[in-house]
Amino acid sequence: MVDKQSYREAMAKLGAAVNVVTGSGPDGRVGCTVCAVCSVTDEPPTLLVCINRNSQNNAAFKAAGSLCVNVLSAEQRLIAERFATKNISADERFGLAQWDVLATGAPALRDALVSLDCEIMSTMEVGTHTVFSCAVKAVRSGASGDGLVYFGRGYHRLNQSTSTLA
Amino acid sequence: MVDKQSYREAMAKLGAAVNVVTGSGPDGRVGCTVCAVCSVTDEPPTLLVCINRNSQNNAAFKAAGSLCVNVLSAEQRLIAERFATKNISADERFGLAQWDVLATGAPALRDALVSLDCEIMSTMEVGTHTVFSCAVKAVRSGASGDGLVYFGRGYHRLNQSTSTLA
Repeated sequence: MVDKQSYREAMAKLGAAVNVVTGSGPDGRVGCTVCAVCSVTDEPPTLLVCINRNSQNNAAFKAAGSLCVNVLSAEQRLIAERFATKNISADERFGLAQWDVLATGAPALRDALVSLDCEIMSTMEVGTHTVFSCAVKAVRSGASGDGLVYFGRGYHRLNQSTSTLA
Repeated sequence: MVDKQSYREAMAKLGAAVNVVTGSGPDGRVGCTVCAVCSVTDEPPTLLVCINRNSQNNAAFKAAGSLCVNVLSAEQRLIAERFATKNISADERFGLAQWDVLATGAPALRDALVSLDCEIMSTMEVGTHTVFSCAVKAVRSGASGDGLVYFGRGYHRLNQSTSTLA
């Protein structure tokens, strides 16, 4: 078996989009910064989202039965950092930007590259995390923009219109 | 519900690392280019990998009970393209690079950013795809290098040492 530290070093080399995953729980809005999001299939449109079990967000997503994946643009790095900060209030997190509601009631970030509003179909507990299997109920594409990716323990900008390996 | 085309447009905005996932099946080596890989937890080290059910690779991974996720560097774009090409032989795919064996017998790409050799713990069928839940049995980090990410329907280079949003 691989030790935790070696695995973390390896994962630092797996680049991933930066997202804020939000929900509307029994005690109000919740949200956190999450890179562990991936597409399963487009028939039916389905995403996987992995969330720490110790997070208050986790319980709120389960209670709501829904969540919204907001894919951040390079201009939204501050929002990523704010939603990754522990022990601050929901108002401090959500106060940085404007939010709407799409299909489920979960907050959708205005000007995200795209927001995917989801109904949670099932959950699976794996070690420290829950895997949420999510049916996409609404999509809202924002303005075009550069992408935001986390890689090598830092944020990176991805040019939207042209490949940097053209 | 969201239609397939809208979902695909949305997924083009979710940047993801480019990986070649390999296996050693009953008929020899198999492999394909996969972006749908994400980390679940480091206790125990666990990855999710999503593979099309119509792919021959899918059956071979299941038969072998193992697979290896090779995270590509920016210099390995040609390997990504080769493993994404349909209807070519395994020799044509694997002939581009050098391969080793780590813990499970699945081919590990020499000079990948990192290779994660995995035992398949469980599978879940979701629409057109299978979700493989994988226990990481061995990690091999390659030389430092820039990352390779797919975003906006093109390949992008990620500088390994410095954030482009510093």
